[in-house]
Amino acid sequence: MLPPVALNLSGERFRVVYRLAGGEAEAYARAQGICVEQTIEFPAELAPPGDIHDHIVGRLEAFRPLDAAHCEAVISYAVETAGLELTQLTNVIFGNASLQPGIRVERLELPATLLAAFRGPRFGRAGLRAWLGVPQRPLLATALKPLGLPAAALADLAYQFALGGIDIIKDDHGLADQLFAPYRERVERCVEAVERAGQQAGYRCAYVANVTAPADQVYERALLARKAGARGLLVAPGLVGLDTMRQLADDDGLALPILSHPAFQGSFVTSADSGLAHGVVFGQMARLAGADASIYPNYGGRFSFSREECRAIAEGTVAPMGHIKPIFPAPGGGMSLARIPEMLESYGREVILLIGGGLHQHGPDLAANCRTFRQLVEQI
Amino acid sequence: MLPPVALNLSGERFRVVYRLAGGEAEAYARAQGICVEQTIEFPAELAPPGDIHDHIVGRLEAFRPLDAAHCEAVISYAVETAGLELTQLTNVIFGNASLQPGIRVERLELPATLLAAFRGPRFGRAGLRAWLGVPQRPLLATALKPLGLPAAALADLAYQFALGGIDIIKDDHGLADQLFAPYRERVERCVEAVERAGQQAGYRCAYVANVTAPADQVYERALLARKAGARGLLVAPGLVGLDTMRQLADDDGLALPILSHPAFQGSFVTSADSGLAHGVVFGQMARLAGADASIYPNYGGRFSFSREECRAIAEGTVAPMGHIKPIFPAPGGGMSLARIPEMLESYGREVILLIGGGLHQHGPDLAANCRTFRQLVEQI
Repeated sequence: MLPPVALNLSGERFRVVYRLAGGEAEAYARAQGICVEQTIEFPAELAPPGDIHDHIVGRLEAFRPLDAAHCEAVISYAVETAGLELTQLTNVIFGNASLQPGIRVERLELPATLLAAFRGPRFGRAGLRAWLGVPQRPLLATALKPLGLPAAALADLAYQFALGGIDIIKDDHGLADQLFAPYRERVERCVEAVERAGQQAGYRCAYVANVTAPADQVYERALLARKAGARGLLVAPGLVGLDTMRQLADDDGLALPILSHPAFQGSFVTSADSGLAHGVVFGQMARLAGADASIYPNYGGRFSFSREECRAIAEGTVAPMGHIKPIFPAPGGGMSLARIPEMLESYGREVILLIGGGLHQHGPDLAANCRTFRQLVEQI
Repeated sequence: MLPPVALNLSGERFRVVYRLAGGEAEAYARAQGICVEQTIEFPAELAPPGDIHDHIVGRLEAFRPLDAAHCEAVISYAVETAGLELTQLTNVIFGNASLQPGIRVERLELPATLLAAFRGPRFGRAGLRAWLGVPQRPLLATALKPLGLPAAALADLAYQFALGGIDIIKDDHGLADQLFAPYRERVERCVEAVERAGQQAGYRCAYVANVTAPADQVYERALLARKAGARGLLVAPGLVGLDTMRQLADDDGLALPILSHPAFQGSFVTSADSGLAHGVVFGQMARLAGADASIYPNYGGRFSFSREECRAIAEGTVAPMGHIKPIFPAPGGGMSLARIPEMLESYGREVILLIGGGLHQHGPDLAANCRTFRQLVEQI
């Protein structure tokens, strides 16, 4: 038996709202299991008396049935368990619980004392608008693709997009450092093309470089992008780790807007009874990790997110989180110019409209298609 | 319309076996969609003719119904799409496809030309046996916990474990750098305790430090562990990113065995029709990313993995992958001494048996419990 332990805890706790599969008895037992699993992961009857037993073990704050097959549990944890680190905070929220069935993270409620450990988005909505010189209307974005084009051809596309007035021209997330369009050459050419077109047309477009890369190269690529004149970074936290995005966002030497891409994050949300809610992954956690915009597949495209799930993401990008700024939802994935009126109705002004392949399909003149895109949005 | 593109491709392709939900017509359309989604992500009719259309787009190599509601599709991709990077390889395998329902990655078939880009596990099964001085029997492991104990108390536990002859004494994955047991102090004290006990008892136990940490501190903590005398690193790739584990494994300045912990990876495998197969996540990908052992929740504990899923993981740790070494499966999670005979029957000798809380429950003398654990295994 371990001796009692006295810890100098602040008493501050953060709360996680879980949706649990099962009727009341089953779900209640599951909730009690989470309190132990996510903290001491130790036989509860052997937990040292004192602060570990009383405060380190998660605390079931509220419990209620939602329907015949689901209950909601609110569990609080001492902020000290997360140790001011995003990796360990994520671990307490859902580390081992992710390996158990029937547990879904619905919402995070983080107190100011914990949020103070995170800088959050450097730009946020207002900062990104200022950065791009677009005070009011929805922002326009597109992607450079297809994979396989040489850097010069990608730069040609970037030129057309910028000529047509697209605010954000980002690498497709599959453009890494492949032989056909090596990273450095691609970034330098695209920056040059976008600046040249911007000067011609009078727009202030931003080329955004994809820095999703091996762990020991992410920062180096981001620095190269910054030096080359890229005006934003695309990162897929599912591929490089959420905290790597946080590191990029926090770096004062980079100081560039961050766009979060959802590649490889789908498994967190595709199961109805497991994983995390859309608003947590693409809203709350993206913000906590410093994204200024969160890209996700819009409803009605070739992906499966529902309108309600997309609305929850949009809510997650702006819901109160202390000093953590609101960010832009950036729905994309199979969008076309025809969808714009409906997307504007759904999302309002505070959105980045991301149209990729659809811009090519609209007509033979790519820059003209972009101007049409812009006009449709300026009418709002 | 984009002009034709000629690329200097090798002709080498890697293959991904997908299990698709749906009857034949639906699943076939889904398979064709994956070929485009995972590569050019562009309207297929506008794909540049030549090598992009012919070779960069994924190729459906085989397709067959599995049962009334599922089909299997084998899709090949040019090795150049992955650009020799684990992040981009992961992206091609399942980046955007993770966001679509009804797609599950069942198996990877990677040619030697692609595998050559990855060093894989530094130690592997044979190397870890040599490192620990255990030529034949199953390896014994336990975890330091509960969270909340001060560093000195954790070191006391480590001492007992080492006195009892546990080969691998690892930090619990929730021990990060919290105030109650700061990283440096914990590592230094635990190394000292394990060495002292090892000398007393004549064992060669390894203390393994958890380096799951913020992106900019992982390497620093690993280096500190190495310098302090830790003899292995615990990493949760779900929290820090898979390629961060690869970076640690590849580093010649560290040269320590790597134990992969499954925290936050559960969502990849909890859905029957989405995500990735257990053997891919905890077997093939863990190896590719340099783990020497892959920890996962054993069947029959408080987690939900089935016996078949655990067997698939064990197979994934040893299935032929060119020069990539076989690694140890390390089933744990709610295991007890009573389960050992059955686990030995299931896994044979090539396994790390991980018992955490169960060691405390067996009796009041922790070192004696460890000796019992060891004796049970030495009987094999």
